Amino acid sequence: MTITVIGSPASPFSLILIYVLKELGLSFENVPTTHEDIKTPEYLATKHPFGRSPVLNDDGFQVYESRAIARYLASKYQGTKTSTILIPSDVQKAALVEQFISVEISYYFPPLFKLLTQLIAVRRQGNEPDLKIVEEAREELGKTLDVYEKLLEGKDYLTGEFSLADIIHLPLTYYAINSAGEGDLWNKRPNVSKWLKNLNERESWKNIVDEYKLSEQISKYTKDSDK
Amino acid sequence: MTITVIGSPASPFSLILIYVLKELGLSFENVPTTHEDIKTPEYLATKHPFGRSPVLNDDGFQVYESRAIARYLASKYQGTKTSTILIPSDVQKAALVEQFISVEISYYFPPLFKLLTQLIAVRRQGNEPDLKIVEEAREELGKTLDVYEKLLEGKDYLTGEFSLADIIHLPLTYYAINSAGEGDLWNKRPNVSKWLKNLNERESWKNIVDEYKLSEQISKYTKDSDK
Repeated sequence: MTITVIGSPASPFSLILIYVLKELGLSFENVPTTHEDIKTPEYLATKHPFGRSPVLNDDGFQVYESRAIARYLASKYQGTKTSTILIPSDVQKAALVEQFISVEISYYFPPLFKLLTQLIAVRRQGNEPDLKIVEEAREELGKTLDVYEKLLEGKDYLTGEFSLADIIHLPLTYYAINSAGEGDLWNKRPNVSKWLKNLNERESWKNIVDEYKLSEQISKYTKDSDK
Repeated sequence: MTITVIGSPASPFSLILIYVLKELGLSFENVPTTHEDIKTPEYLATKHPFGRSPVLNDDGFQVYESRAIARYLASKYQGTKTSTILIPSDVQKAALVEQFISVEISYYFPPLFKLLTQLIAVRRQGNEPDLKIVEEAREELGKTLDVYEKLLEGKDYLTGEFSLADIIHLPLTYYAINSAGEGDLWNKRPNVSKWLKNLNERESWKNIVDEYKLSEQISKYTKDSDK
C-alpha cells in the first residue's frame, strides 16, 4: 500500500490531508509541487484539471480536491490503525460533521481566504494589500466567529467530538495567526480560542509543526512578503 | 416518518434538496420561508445560526446547509424507495462523487453566484448590475466550463453515472439560463450542453418544474427585476 500526497507540504490544503493521515496513523510519501508545476499541460492532463494541489494517489487510485480526499481517507482507513473517527458511521452524527464542513466553506473560508490573499499573497508579489478588502474580510470573518463563539459554548470541538470538520479549519487558521498576525480575531473569543487550543495541542498537529518546520515555512512567507 | 424542508421552494438551495427527495422517492412537507423570516432571533436560535435556508427536519432531527442535508438524505434513504444511488457505497466511486461536489463549490459556484447576484439580486433591488463584475464572472465561469467540456467527453454525467454531484449543479444553472438569460455559456459547449439536457430531462426534475411552477417563479424574478 503506497499513499502519495502530491502537493507542497507548506500549502494549507496539503496540510489538511497530512493532518488527516497522521490522525489515522497512515504513512505516506510526499511529492512536493511548486506554483509552476501545477500549471503545466502534463499536470493539468494527468493530475488536476483545474491546476491545483493537493492530489492523492492511493495505490494507483487518484483523486483531487482536499475535502474529497479527506473524506475518502476517513471512509477507507479510519479505525484501522488508530481509534480516531473523523466521520462517524451514525448517519445523524455524520450529518452534523458535514454541516460544519459546509459551514466552513460557506462562511469561514471565503473571508479568511480573502484576508490571507491580501496579507500574504499580495505582499509576496511585492504589492501593498488593499486595506478596504482587508477590513471587509476581517469584519465578515468576525461575524462568522461570533456565531462560532455561540456554537462552541460548552464544547471541545464543533460537534462535541473531534472530527474532520475541526481538522479542515486548522491549517489556514494557523497561517492567519502565525504568518498574517491576525490572532486577535480568534483569541478575543474565549470559546473559539479554547477550541483552537484543543486543535493545536493534538499530538498529530504538534508532530506536523515539528516535522514540516512550519515556523520556518512561516518565516519564509514573511521574508517573501518583505520583497 | 415526517421529513420537512424549511425554506422557499423558489430558492436554488431548497431545490437541490427537493431534487434529491424526488430522486429518492421520499415524500416531504415544505415550510416556506421569506428573506425576513430567516433573520429573526427565533430562526437564528432554533433553525440556522447563520440565517440561511434550507433547514431539514427529519422526525425531530434537524440539520442545516443544503450540501450536508443532501448527503444525509442519500446516506439514510437511498435505495429504500427507488433504485437511484446518489453516493455509491464503493469508497473510490464515492470519492469521485465528492471530488466533483468539491469542484462545484470551488470553481463553478463562486463565479456563477457572482454573476447571478448582479443579474438577478442587484436588479431586483432596483439597481444596475456592475458590468465589470458581470464580465469577470462570465469569463471565470467560461474557463471552468472549458474544463467541464473536457471532463464530460464521452460521459452522460460527471462521474459517468448520475450522482449527487450532478444534482448540486442544476438549480442555480437553471436560474442562470432561464432567469438571467445566460444560456450561451452552457449551450455553446457540446458536452456541457448534453450533460445539462440529461439533467433537465430526468423525470424528477421535470416534475419539480411543473409542481413548483418554476417558469412562474422565474417570471416573478424577472418582474421584480423590472422595478
